Amino acid sequence: MTLATEVNIPRLDHIGIAVESIEAALPLYRDGLECEASEPIEAPTEQVRLVMVSTGESRVELLEATSADSPIARFIRKRGQGIHHLAMKVSDLDGVVERLKKSGRRLVTETVQRGGAGDYRYVFVHPKSAGGVLLELIEE
Amino acid sequence: MTLATEVNIPRLDHIGIAVESIEAALPLYRDGLECEASEPIEAPTEQVRLVMVSTGESRVELLEATSADSPIARFIRKRGQGIHHLAMKVSDLDGVVERLKKSGRRLVTETVQRGGAGDYRYVFVHPKSAGGVLLELIEE
Repeated sequence: MTLATEVNIPRLDHIGIAVESIEAALPLYRDGLECEASEPIEAPTEQVRLVMVSTGESRVELLEATSADSPIARFIRKRGQGIHHLAMKVSDLDGVVERLKKSGRRLVTETVQRGGAGDYRYVFVHPKSAGGVLLELIEE
Repeated sequence: MTLATEVNIPRLDHIGIAVESIEAALPLYRDGLECEASEPIEAPTEQVRLVMVSTGESRVELLEATSADSPIARFIRKRGQGIHHLAMKVSDLDGVVERLKKSGRRLVTETVQRGGAGDYRYVFVHPKSAGGVLLELIEE
């Protein structure tokens, strides 16, 4: 627990919001709240385009589908626009995954994945095992 | 914008998650992720009981209804358990509200409210004006 205190881990990394249009969603954050925002970033493997909005040490990611098969497009068809997932950074992802599996929690993929813009290690906890939240765990 | 850079504002303050039972939802965060968590706090005006989970400079709030009329109970009946709202801290709430109203955005209440555990000023942006997100704005 000493490490957790020292480096402030686990901590919230980002919140992913599924939007129909970044162009329509961004002005609230950029102009209304005066948050800084990135240029749009393409993430072809997830079939999304995203903008990162700075919100302190964490960020809000506005996620727009680039194809009808994108997980974001499917989410919007089912539930409408809104918060899609929470992502937390942890310092020992394998240890966390082991504890979660031992306590019977379901992960979206059986094993830790690697990828994303920063080539990081991550896994998703299934909403059925996380009180309705799609929870991404990212290794620091 | 100088102020925003200096004090890291706007920043994410907390994420409210509607859960059927804090007792069932907390172990994932406290035991699985090894986050620090508060004792349960009663918030009778909102008809909820909550536990605050530390996630860096922000926190996750697990919200359990204490009556069937609670907004959290109604949310769960309609959408199931999951993320209920996002809360951001801003340094000039009245200025933000004025900009949001000028751009035609709908607030849940017409005027800024005061209350909560720390007696702070806050307002909610309606999900219809925030891409499906119930967005709470809190004055720093």
